Amino acid sequence: MEHIFRLQEALRLAQEKNYPLLRQMLAQENEADIAQFLEEVYSQSSPQTVVLIFRLLPKELAAQVFSFLMGDMQAVIVSGITDQELSGIVEELSVDDAVDMLEELPANVVKRVLKSAKPSTRQMLNRFLNYPENSAGSIMTAEFVDLRRSMTVAQAIHRIRTMGADSETIYTCYVIDEGRVLDGVVTVRELLLARDEQLVQEIMDDHVICAAATDDREEVASLFSKYGFLALPVVDAEHRLVGIVTVDDAVEVLEQEATEDFERMAAMQPSHKSYLKTSVFTLAKSRILWLLVLMISGMITGGILGKYEEAFASLPILVTFIPMLTDTGGNAGSQSSTLVIRGMALSEIRPRDFFAVIWKEARVSFLVGAALSAVNFVRLIITYPGNVLLALTVAVALFVTVVVAKTLGGMLPMIAKTLKLDPAIMAAPLITTIVDAVSLMIYFSVAQLLFGMA
Amino acid sequence: MEHIFRLQEALRLAQEKNYPLLRQMLAQENEADIAQFLEEVYSQSSPQTVVLIFRLLPKELAAQVFSFLMGDMQAVIVSGITDQELSGIVEELSVDDAVDMLEELPANVVKRVLKSAKPSTRQMLNRFLNYPENSAGSIMTAEFVDLRRSMTVAQAIHRIRTMGADSETIYTCYVIDEGRVLDGVVTVRELLLARDEQLVQEIMDDHVICAAATDDREEVASLFSKYGFLALPVVDAEHRLVGIVTVDDAVEVLEQEATEDFERMAAMQPSHKSYLKTSVFTLAKSRILWLLVLMISGMITGGILGKYEEAFASLPILVTFIPMLTDTGGNAGSQSSTLVIRGMALSEIRPRDFFAVIWKEARVSFLVGAALSAVNFVRLIITYPGNVLLALTVAVALFVTVVVAKTLGGMLPMIAKTLKLDPAIMAAPLITTIVDAVSLMIYFSVAQLLFGMA
Repeated sequence: MEHIFRLQEALRLAQEKNYPLLRQMLAQENEADIAQFLEEVYSQSSPQTVVLIFRLLPKELAAQVFSFLMGDMQAVIVSGITDQELSGIVEELSVDDAVDMLEELPANVVKRVLKSAKPSTRQMLNRFLNYPENSAGSIMTAEFVDLRRSMTVAQAIHRIRTMGADSETIYTCYVIDEGRVLDGVVTVRELLLARDEQLVQEIMDDHVICAAATDDREEVASLFSKYGFLALPVVDAEHRLVGIVTVDDAVEVLEQEATEDFERMAAMQPSHKSYLKTSVFTLAKSRILWLLVLMISGMITGGILGKYEEAFASLPILVTFIPMLTDTGGNAGSQSSTLVIRGMALSEIRPRDFFAVIWKEARVSFLVGAALSAVNFVRLIITYPGNVLLALTVAVALFVTVVVAKTLGGMLPMIAKTLKLDPAIMAAPLITTIVDAVSLMIYFSVAQLLFGMA
Repeated sequence: MEHIFRLQEALRLAQEKNYPLLRQMLAQENEADIAQFLEEVYSQSSPQTVVLIFRLLPKELAAQVFSFLMGDMQAVIVSGITDQELSGIVEELSVDDAVDMLEELPANVVKRVLKSAKPSTRQMLNRFLNYPENSAGSIMTAEFVDLRRSMTVAQAIHRIRTMGADSETIYTCYVIDEGRVLDGVVTVRELLLARDEQLVQEIMDDHVICAAATDDREEVASLFSKYGFLALPVVDAEHRLVGIVTVDDAVEVLEQEATEDFERMAAMQPSHKSYLKTSVFTLAKSRILWLLVLMISGMITGGILGKYEEAFASLPILVTFIPMLTDTGGNAGSQSSTLVIRGMALSEIRPRDFFAVIWKEARVSFLVGAALSAVNFVRLIITYPGNVLLALTVAVALFVTVVVAKTLGGMLPMIAKTLKLDPAIMAAPLITTIVDAVSLMIYFSVAQLLFGMA
């Protein structure tokens, strides 16, 4: 990386209260870096210092930096500045960033923010705050360039040059009719490469791919990775243009959704906060519910095991293979469920592929199960010479366990999806618990059969 | 979503060999949709049909569609078209897409592609093919607009309008000096909002954040999510501009890296191919190695268990708590390791946070362990009235297991990172196996102590 923000130097200047030099330095830096710097200052000194440094920033930069800050930092700053400064920031923020902020702030602060905003801004913020939490509406912004189909290229470029300053992105322009209905889309690139006197309608694309404001934000974000868009228009039920989603917000959604899947797949409730910033109590709370549920399932497995007490009392060596058997079953199952869950998240696997997935997992599990069983059989014949029955019991139980685990692991996430549940809950922990019970039943049934027990 | 590609209609037209109508329909569609349509045609009919339909596309669209196709489809088309058509596509493709294609094609086809390219294109392709697989160089493209600092805004816009047609992105322009050294960066937005007679050097930003061609592509992609860039310049060791990375490629890298982490965390070798397109044999191969390694660790745990054979022969009920204990330990550990692994992937947790993480996990594990133990103790007192020793054994073992599991789960990924290993291998499967051995030792030691065995 070439230009690196000199964090240590900035921190030193802040410590020495050398504010003139700090102001000069910060004015040249990237807003994301300054936001990170402020978070660092916050962790080392007082909220007052943070507000003091924030006030050093030029107005437009201040708003940009503000949009990169976490919710708690935003609250610190909002409570430390005057109503007039607050109003300035709210007007400079793009709508999606302002809405993000309002969703994080305590109710009394939200009231103050809305009061200090201009009436038109307040009205728009209230409208945007009404979109459901995970909808396209909740991540869209209202700043974009709208054109009419009858404009010439020169007129369109002129419009961009005069009104573009407030737009989060000007690179894709939207062509609307008198009723604000979305008509077409034209990129700045196409406008620049066209002749001045051409009409917008000649060069615009009228096959517009767009989202409804109520669409799921994850689906909308995945359109960006499919098509490589920079922005996507959002329309209401009457096909009127109400906002746009930009690629930076789509990237954020994709990262958040992946993090949520990671958390759910490890049996946690998603937290939406960075690990180091989450309190011990909140972390414990997000983990304990699933652990309890799974612990109780583990007890059920224990109950099943209790039925075979005679078997392992008379042949205690059987117990020593339990960890290997249940772990391998759990791992084999979670491999399958992980691939299917991720494949569905990336829309590579669709519900109609159900039987293709089962058939594939069945064949894979056959190969894998056979290989693992063979290794185990040979190893047991060597370690316990003469005890072919024991080797056979373990090998057969392992093979059946792997086949069942992989088939279940492939099936359950797809069933969850059909039931409108998040497939990510059908991951390692739950699969392991289910497969544990199944594999122990198989194991001891095989043992009883082969050793002629009860 | 508003404009939806009518896949079924296109497939019907293809089946009816109504090529004039199909050509007309496809000419208006998005390249990503057409690519998906071709994949569908390929799965339903012959390679010849795919090539035939591909040839219906206008030249520029054909190249765009080609860049969205998977490697195997690209090979089908390359082997079905003439050298002249191939040359046309190669010249239209942006360098990064051409390089992607060449990395997937068999060697003899690569030779043919390079032979059919213009000498200048061939030279550039050869240069780009030399960048290491996971470097910024391997995902960058060479098409961008370069400006000089002494140009006026009008001259700069004129240059964009005349040379922009070939650029993957024109929205960020790069200012270089006579030696091609990167001097500054200016966006089309800034140019459009400036006055015609202003000089580029007045409005350009000379604090350029850029990447080296040898930087890791994952780190480069994470700069996009941090800063919200549309493009990032890439320089060589002498700070000369050699290419740019665009946001669409960064999104792809982020998705691929997340998928790789999911796969590694479920004990698989990453495959880089979509699930449904991967052969059964390849899937089995990518899963079997880790299962074998973990199975052997499971055998070691079994060996440890063997030492306590007397304990569970004399008190078989102890065995019934093994699944609950090992599962809870594994789940508790994988919760912690997942959060730490994901936190490091998103650069939220850095190596210097080592002790902060351990301290946090210790406190969380204390809370969680205490809660789960209490529930278990009460439940056992109710189920086995009078058997306080048993309840105590299980509760103590569970508490220690959860604390050890969470501390290990937090520590191991960070240690892996320091050892330059991928932290993602320190996930659920490995943690579970380690925790299994530890928790069983704790369990039976406590049992022996409390019941006065051995």
